[in-house]
Amino acid sequence: MELLYEGKAKRIYRTERQGKLLVSYKDAATAFNGEKKTEITGKGRLNNEISVLIFEKLKEAGIANHLIRKVSETEQLVEEVTIIPLEVVVRNIVAGSMAKRLGIQEGTPIPEPIVEFYYKDDALGDPLITESHIALLNAATPEQTAELKEKALKVNQILIPYFAQRNVRLIDFKLEFGLRKDGTILLADEISPDTCRLWDAETGERLDKDVFRRDLGSLTNAYEEILKRLGGPAHV
Amino acid sequence: MELLYEGKAKRIYRTERQGKLLVSYKDAATAFNGEKKTEITGKGRLNNEISVLIFEKLKEAGIANHLIRKVSETEQLVEEVTIIPLEVVVRNIVAGSMAKRLGIQEGTPIPEPIVEFYYKDDALGDPLITESHIALLNAATPEQTAELKEKALKVNQILIPYFAQRNVRLIDFKLEFGLRKDGTILLADEISPDTCRLWDAETGERLDKDVFRRDLGSLTNAYEEILKRLGGPAHV
Repeated sequence: MELLYEGKAKRIYRTERQGKLLVSYKDAATAFNGEKKTEITGKGRLNNEISVLIFEKLKEAGIANHLIRKVSETEQLVEEVTIIPLEVVVRNIVAGSMAKRLGIQEGTPIPEPIVEFYYKDDALGDPLITESHIALLNAATPEQTAELKEKALKVNQILIPYFAQRNVRLIDFKLEFGLRKDGTILLADEISPDTCRLWDAETGERLDKDVFRRDLGSLTNAYEEILKRLGGPAHV
Repeated sequence: MELLYEGKAKRIYRTERQGKLLVSYKDAATAFNGEKKTEITGKGRLNNEISVLIFEKLKEAGIANHLIRKVSETEQLVEEVTIIPLEVVVRNIVAGSMAKRLGIQEGTPIPEPIVEFYYKDDALGDPLITESHIALLNAATPEQTAELKEKALKVNQILIPYFAQRNVRLIDFKLEFGLRKDGTILLADEISPDTCRLWDAETGERLDKDVFRRDLGSLTNAYEEILKRLGGPAHV
């Protein structure tokens, strides 16, 4: 298979079938725009399994997305789209870069969920941008931007109770979207502990990539715990 | 007189008259959140004279502002307001931090003027924030934020031709606003080559604080040139 793209955490291959891509999740962990990185055996499987479960849940709840089906422990088949160069972040509780940017303590609740846009550009460090910047950059039209925001908030309304029922607080998460050839917008990329902040609802224990970013313990233990709570397959 | 506040470029004193403050412009030049600083004799006079002329022009054009009158070469009397902790930036041409943030070449025209908000907090480095952040921080209500944006764009529509008639391109500028006790919003702070990017319309020569930021020559020569083109008093 032709390797189309290799990112920090995934490889994407063209398949024989027109418009279908194979995504293979890597065991690499990276943070701080690639400054911190390491190999963590099992991470690829965990993110693939978790992302498949979440995308299936979202599809069921009416959010069209690129997932076709799981292929193996570390691979999934997805519909090919042109990725919109925006990271769409939804925040329910102040944490991470928002806590630093605004000088608000991590853990502070946000009265209404906030959507932020970051420009996907490693060389620029994926900067926070405004809707005016998105238009200036031609990253998306104002109509597309409005649709991204609406879809992101819908995903949030589905995932908050989904995680809450599993005793997990959804603090924030990052989405990416793509365009089909007909111009429709499809949820793409992954949703996993790499791209969400997930705290144990009772203890506040971090069950996401902050474990790696902040050296809080075993990343695979945290991700296995999430996979288990989502009812995913135990490792054999 | 009681010194109420000393900033990087100004001292503000309480006067005997209720609700009226004296602003005294300093000769200090600072950039990069105070990392670069020096004393430049005459800078205080230039910014005071230029700001008085611009605020008088804006008042004449219907933009209510805090200026009461010039008191001396380096001092002006202003109405006391509670400053809203936002820097409201209007951009007509890409330059400075926007060029860096978005990876767009300085000098690129912006089809529709863009308004940005920065949170006035030295410890945080005056970060770019979105309208959602403004609400979360209680820096302004959504209605106030909309009014700030509208007023900032009006100021831009007045100042673009004002400078153009004087052979100067208004690239971008920063405004600050304050609240009167009755809750009305008043344009405050200063408008000067410290807070605007001003390029000679023919040569592109920088006639603003970038001369100091980027070591492009004599700051006072550039500011004197602006004062002269605005019809201000020559130094005696």
